[in-house]
Amino acid sequence: MNLTGPALLGPKQVAQQAQQALLPVTRKQNFGEWYRAVIAGADLATNSVVRGCMVIKPWGYGIWEQIQRQMDDLFKKHKCCQNAYFPLFIPTKLFAAEAQHVKGFAKECAVVTHYRMKLDDENNMIPDPEAQLEEPLVVRPTSETIIGDTMRQEIRSYRDLPLKYNQWCNVVRWEHQTNMFLRTAEFLWQEGHCAFANEKDARENMVQMAQVYRAFMTQVCAIPVIMGRKSPGERFAGAEETMCLEAMMQDGKALQAGTSHYLGQNFAKSSGIQFTDETQKTQYAHTTSWGVSTRLVGAMIMTHSDDDGLRVPPRLATHHVVVIPSGHKGIEERNKYIQEVEGLFDKAAYAGRAVSVHVDDRDMSPAEKQWEWIRKGAPLRFEIGAREAKEQTVTVSRRDQHYKEKVVVKINDLVPYVIQTLAEIQEKYYAQAKEFLETHISTKVEDFEQLQKHFADENNVGFVRVKWCGDPDTEEMLKPYKLTIRCLPEDQTGTQGKCVLTGQPATTDVIIGRSY
Amino acid sequence: MNLTGPALLGPKQVAQQAQQALLPVTRKQNFGEWYRAVIAGADLATNSVVRGCMVIKPWGYGIWEQIQRQMDDLFKKHKCCQNAYFPLFIPTKLFAAEAQHVKGFAKECAVVTHYRMKLDDENNMIPDPEAQLEEPLVVRPTSETIIGDTMRQEIRSYRDLPLKYNQWCNVVRWEHQTNMFLRTAEFLWQEGHCAFANEKDARENMVQMAQVYRAFMTQVCAIPVIMGRKSPGERFAGAEETMCLEAMMQDGKALQAGTSHYLGQNFAKSSGIQFTDETQKTQYAHTTSWGVSTRLVGAMIMTHSDDDGLRVPPRLATHHVVVIPSGHKGIEERNKYIQEVEGLFDKAAYAGRAVSVHVDDRDMSPAEKQWEWIRKGAPLRFEIGAREAKEQTVTVSRRDQHYKEKVVVKINDLVPYVIQTLAEIQEKYYAQAKEFLETHISTKVEDFEQLQKHFADENNVGFVRVKWCGDPDTEEMLKPYKLTIRCLPEDQTGTQGKCVLTGQPATTDVIIGRSY
Repeated sequence: MNLTGPALLGPKQVAQQAQQALLPVTRKQNFGEWYRAVIAGADLATNSVVRGCMVIKPWGYGIWEQIQRQMDDLFKKHKCCQNAYFPLFIPTKLFAAEAQHVKGFAKECAVVTHYRMKLDDENNMIPDPEAQLEEPLVVRPTSETIIGDTMRQEIRSYRDLPLKYNQWCNVVRWEHQTNMFLRTAEFLWQEGHCAFANEKDARENMVQMAQVYRAFMTQVCAIPVIMGRKSPGERFAGAEETMCLEAMMQDGKALQAGTSHYLGQNFAKSSGIQFTDETQKTQYAHTTSWGVSTRLVGAMIMTHSDDDGLRVPPRLATHHVVVIPSGHKGIEERNKYIQEVEGLFDKAAYAGRAVSVHVDDRDMSPAEKQWEWIRKGAPLRFEIGAREAKEQTVTVSRRDQHYKEKVVVKINDLVPYVIQTLAEIQEKYYAQAKEFLETHISTKVEDFEQLQKHFADENNVGFVRVKWCGDPDTEEMLKPYKLTIRCLPEDQTGTQGKCVLTGQPATTDVIIGRSY
Repeated sequence: MNLTGPALLGPKQVAQQAQQALLPVTRKQNFGEWYRAVIAGADLATNSVVRGCMVIKPWGYGIWEQIQRQMDDLFKKHKCCQNAYFPLFIPTKLFAAEAQHVKGFAKECAVVTHYRMKLDDENNMIPDPEAQLEEPLVVRPTSETIIGDTMRQEIRSYRDLPLKYNQWCNVVRWEHQTNMFLRTAEFLWQEGHCAFANEKDARENMVQMAQVYRAFMTQVCAIPVIMGRKSPGERFAGAEETMCLEAMMQDGKALQAGTSHYLGQNFAKSSGIQFTDETQKTQYAHTTSWGVSTRLVGAMIMTHSDDDGLRVPPRLATHHVVVIPSGHKGIEERNKYIQEVEGLFDKAAYAGRAVSVHVDDRDMSPAEKQWEWIRKGAPLRFEIGAREAKEQTVTVSRRDQHYKEKVVVKINDLVPYVIQTLAEIQEKYYAQAKEFLETHISTKVEDFEQLQKHFADENNVGFVRVKWCGDPDTEEMLKPYKLTIRCLPEDQTGTQGKCVLTGQPATTDVIIGRSY
């Protein structure tokens, strides 16, 4: 412990606050409740009056904004796509055109049947029976079909390919069990939809986008992920191949943080996306789609948070630094000094973004503010009182360290200290999560009995890495145990072994685990 | 004419292309058709298969992205709000709570009645009768009510005020006559919703946001606007006062480019937004709301475009510069030179954003590309062929000048030339639009007969500025002539005069015109 800062609080207060700091439940006690407590404690989101839909509050939405801006910049840098916007509503007929897709999506969705409300005789507002739509509209659960309809009109010759669209939007899937950020009826995402002249280009695009996602998740979100391919049973409805990024939460469960699909010519055929190739022959295009959603915010929460609340990786934090004014003496000079400190960061940047310093000048006790910003996971907190103003220092607390550890930094050293410390925190969060992932993949499981035993034991948190023969029918064997093949990881060893499900000879490595 | 560039095209080609350049219709011939031709020619958007919903194509969406990013930066700079996200769906009951609001919005909206589709006996997909919602949901036409519901839960004491939310999202209003960007069933916008402890603070917020919009529209969109207050007949449903920014299109019609409302305690009462004030008394909050939508893209098109197509103000252009490679000789060296030219702009910035240089290397004739980028209104076009590569120059065309005017710029002068020229074009577009606005406001109209005559004459394009007595009932007189009081402009002269509608003494200046 390195309590070099001035003792701004008495021991009684500190004890009181230690109480306050703790969430009502720890990760060990009940991981699901802890997750909801982190969200409530950091004021990231709340359930709304609309079943299954959440309100994303500013501190939570700010994380999504950082994801959106920085991922979009990455897309632009790598020329992954052009952003566009397609209608929220999909006519039933379009939707019904792709049979596999229908199976996957059409069932549970919001259906618009009327275009007007009216007051009935009892003064209740009801859908006006005279304003019924001839063809009901589905609120998009995903946009393959509606974007396919535009592609059909735009693509004539091989010169029009590749055509690479992306949109940032809301989608709706009528989920029966919801969980904030992880599974909600409405959520926010980006969906890329691309058309290519041949299978090779389309498959390369699928791989490229999985790689872009991996880079983003590891570097920006500090979330280590396993990149791999989905087994047939876990593929996207209508896809020939699905690549995924699997992250491990602190309870050892898998969370699919992003996917990239090669759709073959399935959607091109149902949407009529044809082109004339260089030999004047008419061909169907090969399409891909790829997406990342507000789920990633859920992954970030469950990867980095601790029993005191959220810890936001600096690259995703709305504010890097929160300044908490303290003390009752020399207020005027203190406030002037705070302005001076704030001004120091006018031109400072961390990871390509201006360092954001937020002065919390609300009419609340400094101790309350401290705990609030601990629960919210702001990377750095500055305490500034009359003493700091006089001594030209700042008392700094880091969210990656115990709340009692404080360090006094001289004003002249402050900017480089902050930039370096933010980088340290970002790296530390990643390193901690990576160690957790790597130490929670068992390679000792050899047959189906061992697999069952392994996952029956509550002490065995995490994934197993085993061999699999590749027979799609065998995936059913895992269902009673709520297990799934998370992916066939890209780093295949190619060694000989036995299929964990059938005992047959097998060379393919797979990751098996429980998932969100 | 200053044709200093190398004659890359023969006269026959130039003549052919002059033909190509012209849109199928001019502003004079038919302004409405011209507007649609500009949109089609610049590939900004298309009608979708969903009635009244458009597909916003990349070049059009890019303009909205610039509006969104830059306006959001401005909001953050001025601490106007915190971004958040609220549900797409609004329960009927919530919606019905505010009677005035219902009148204005509840009628024409998309209504979700079912949460599942099924196949019927004839294999048609229909809403599953067993999956009918107990309470229908309205797709948000605006979010006062649903945000009010969150505010009600969040606000306890005066310490929680002001509470200032904003969201960027899609909204739906079931319009019967649609027009791309101006009036579509679904559109994109931002909506700010704020709660304050008293009327004064709320009214100040309404004014501040109108000012922020005005600054943005004039400086970033190069659209001059008249800031004013709406007459009672033109106010937002449920507002006590509405401020607006009125722009003049090239046909002389008004387009409301943004609004800011003081909602009094109306929404606070219907939503139950109460707080305890400093004297422990329970009070209703005073709320505001303010918004700008993809309509602003329509305003930009109709303000700046000409008979050759779109002209995008540099601050809104996805690409500031488009490079068109030309010629068939020395391809390799030319391409190397193009890379070199592109590289020059790596660290160049214009108006706080990196200069975007797009190399159009599609397999098409350079002439076709030239006309395409004229129609799309890219601010600057570079022609680069073997000659430019050899002479270390670039042949530049400006969209604000005739397409035959070209200037040869030495590579060493290129970056400062581009930055300065972009600023010149931005200023010129604004100056041209401002002159048009100022010369198309007549102050000669003195009574109702003159008003009718004035607007009956097709040569009188634009607004009139007249006196009005302020009696809300008199607004009805304008309806048969499709005229409205656009606003009571902020720059009131206060002079004595006669009401143009009643002849009564009046001091208030109003702007009257036809509108979109």
